[in-house]
Amino acid sequence: MRTLQDLAASAAAAPTRARPHVVIVGAGFGGLTAARALAGAPVDVTLIDRRNHHLFQPLLYQVATAGLAPNQIATPIRTILRDQANVRVVLAEVTGVDTARRLVITGGRRTAYDLLVLATGATHAYFGHDAWSAFAPGLKSLDDAVALRRRVLTAFEAAETACDPAERRRLLTFAVIGAGPTGVEMAGAIAELAHRALTRDFRAVREAMARVLLIEAGERVLPTFQPALSAYAASALARLGVEVRVGAAVTDMDRGGLTAGGERIEASTVIWAAGVRASPAAAWLGVAGDRAGRVEVAGDLSVPGAPEVFVIGDVARVTDAAGRLSPGTAPAAKQQGEHVARVIRSRVAGRPGPGPYRYVDAGALATIGRRAAVAQLPGLRLTRTPAWLFWCVAHIYFLVGFRNRIQVGLDWLWSYLTFERGARLITGDDRAGEPINGHVAGTCDCPSL
Amino acid sequence: MRTLQDLAASAAAAPTRARPHVVIVGAGFGGLTAARALAGAPVDVTLIDRRNHHLFQPLLYQVATAGLAPNQIATPIRTILRDQANVRVVLAEVTGVDTARRLVITGGRRTAYDLLVLATGATHAYFGHDAWSAFAPGLKSLDDAVALRRRVLTAFEAAETACDPAERRRLLTFAVIGAGPTGVEMAGAIAELAHRALTRDFRAVREAMARVLLIEAGERVLPTFQPALSAYAASALARLGVEVRVGAAVTDMDRGGLTAGGERIEASTVIWAAGVRASPAAAWLGVAGDRAGRVEVAGDLSVPGAPEVFVIGDVARVTDAAGRLSPGTAPAAKQQGEHVARVIRSRVAGRPGPGPYRYVDAGALATIGRRAAVAQLPGLRLTRTPAWLFWCVAHIYFLVGFRNRIQVGLDWLWSYLTFERGARLITGDDRAGEPINGHVAGTCDCPSL
Repeated sequence: MRTLQDLAASAAAAPTRARPHVVIVGAGFGGLTAARALAGAPVDVTLIDRRNHHLFQPLLYQVATAGLAPNQIATPIRTILRDQANVRVVLAEVTGVDTARRLVITGGRRTAYDLLVLATGATHAYFGHDAWSAFAPGLKSLDDAVALRRRVLTAFEAAETACDPAERRRLLTFAVIGAGPTGVEMAGAIAELAHRALTRDFRAVREAMARVLLIEAGERVLPTFQPALSAYAASALARLGVEVRVGAAVTDMDRGGLTAGGERIEASTVIWAAGVRASPAAAWLGVAGDRAGRVEVAGDLSVPGAPEVFVIGDVARVTDAAGRLSPGTAPAAKQQGEHVARVIRSRVAGRPGPGPYRYVDAGALATIGRRAAVAQLPGLRLTRTPAWLFWCVAHIYFLVGFRNRIQVGLDWLWSYLTFERGARLITGDDRAGEPINGHVAGTCDCPSL
Repeated sequence: MRTLQDLAASAAAAPTRARPHVVIVGAGFGGLTAARALAGAPVDVTLIDRRNHHLFQPLLYQVATAGLAPNQIATPIRTILRDQANVRVVLAEVTGVDTARRLVITGGRRTAYDLLVLATGATHAYFGHDAWSAFAPGLKSLDDAVALRRRVLTAFEAAETACDPAERRRLLTFAVIGAGPTGVEMAGAIAELAHRALTRDFRAVREAMARVLLIEAGERVLPTFQPALSAYAASALARLGVEVRVGAAVTDMDRGGLTAGGERIEASTVIWAAGVRASPAAAWLGVAGDRAGRVEVAGDLSVPGAPEVFVIGDVARVTDAAGRLSPGTAPAAKQQGEHVARVIRSRVAGRPGPGPYRYVDAGALATIGRRAAVAQLPGLRLTRTPAWLFWCVAHIYFLVGFRNRIQVGLDWLWSYLTFERGARLITGDDRAGEPINGHVAGTCDCPSL
């Protein structure tokens, strides 16, 4: 087998010859950053994703709550990489890796690689309660978000024509499980949707009828933040009308609702934000993942025993030189994408590597609602309007694509000024709404209809 | 049974008493216009639709070709009617009407009416070839448009990695059946997408590979327009690279392509724009529909024998006093919505009616592409840039909702200046693309992958 330097040298001598082939699987923050950071490097890059778009996941909850439209937080991967000559984008679903023969398997097809970067992310995990996924969907893809938007909006529609007050109350009860940043943001956004944006449009549904619960098994909301920020977030949620239950583990779930901390809650809409599990890269590689399914990697982000395979982002367990576990966030994934590109560039050039990966703390942000957010930055702690403005600017700044930034900025300004939501469409199911958990529509002759 | 005037009079005397109940089924152009035109009338209006949004159907093809996002051409019905006190909006699917007992059936529920307006529109018709619907989807709802967008974009993705040149050519062949305004607009938009917007993003797919056909059984494109405008449209389509086949009836269709005018065409994507059939209102009413399933109505748009039931829009066959058949267009549906509201107001007041409905010719428009359109207006005929500008202004003007107008205007300007498409997302299916007609993905080891 030729060495990487052989390949690079022969490519330099005769540019039509094959250069080292880097296959990157996954065009999330990690994989896309790695691909871009290899621009101009003497390698051919193939970026494989099972979707045609890069998704700005931190704003996915805004699609689920009708604040933004799908195209405002997603950009075709091809468009992002259009001007990068050494990258090809392939829409395909990877089903396995043959590390012995250095092949990536996509369905019946095989793609040979010299170097492989797996950046396949994570999905929601139900901790052994897989049956709950039918009652409490999670939020990872645009399709998840559009389905959740359909569920939430359909619950309001069904409540508008419900005959039985108890059923109406159940229809208007929304429970978010897990009070990390995603859960806090979902609960806050649903509360704003229910109490502000929607009630003007309904006749029978009144603001006070809607109930939003945020259920957390741990001691406090935003457990990875400093306690003072958790306390502020809890009070900001309460001001929005969110009922926060901490120390309340979910023990049961069915079509009618759930049981948490011993309390039975009748709820039509339950949203899972309690945990994630890595995608099956560990199984592809035949290595043992950690408890969350992540692949343990070395300081150069390669897999021990397979130096030509790198794993980055949410699917990797990265303990840096200082012994700190890198968090499962977008900034960490991007830093790892940049690091792996540096490692690949030096390997191909036969130079010593850049030294082991070190996570640079980028801070943590979570928004609760209008002019309510928390920001835990290196040496700085913000709450209320300053944190919220910081959050808005940071998220718009990091959105891929100039036009998306302008659009999202204008949409947020519009929402702020008018309390409107611009994307309140029930789509994705060609019938009048989809079945809501436990709701049997149209079974009585209701005088109020 | 109380008369309508009794109801209206008792409501005036005691405002809490029930007023005549007008049920409108369908919130398209006809039903929505009727509901709005009843603002302030002494009636209670219930507007029932199986979707939560009013759809600006004339721009649906732009969603299917990734020019606009779904939320830019659809607005929640509730939002449109928010400030109209005498209307309730209900999300439900009507399954029948009991004219004897004056009930509308929605699933297991019944809603009593005093006056009923059916404005349920039309759907695509395959003229006895229902099996073709699987190969050649039509375009009536947002879900149709998103599914078609997924199909078109996935065909390009599959072509990018296809091994076999013949299969690549088939994947990049798009056939539109029917050269009315919808078919012409679809064909032109796909040609622009294929030849301009997409090719910059692909490596293996080149502009010249994509083939767009417009297939029409009749003598010319845009058969309802003046022959000179048809001729201009045909030449504008040819300039865009669309192969126009007239006098070519489709005789066969399968997963690999279709046969039209005796010619076999291998095509991955076939779009049906050849005909519509009225929704089943005639069956609900127990009357015989015309050949297209439409209900024949009298001059006051009521059903002969059931004066309290009105039928308007694409589901009605309206021959006006001058003996002219009202066309199945948005302006005609709106005029009928206004007329039926006038009839209802006079019936409730016990006044003589407004006289029989007369269709006022609003002209006809169709766009082919950038600076290419035709407009046939009363006393005026436009082509090229003037027609295109007229089309743009007219469509933006008629879009419901101030914000949509601004957004769509900006998006068009952006697309015009950059040749970009802003909504190129493959969504609605959680896997890597959906099966394309006759394409078996990933069955070979392709060296080009």
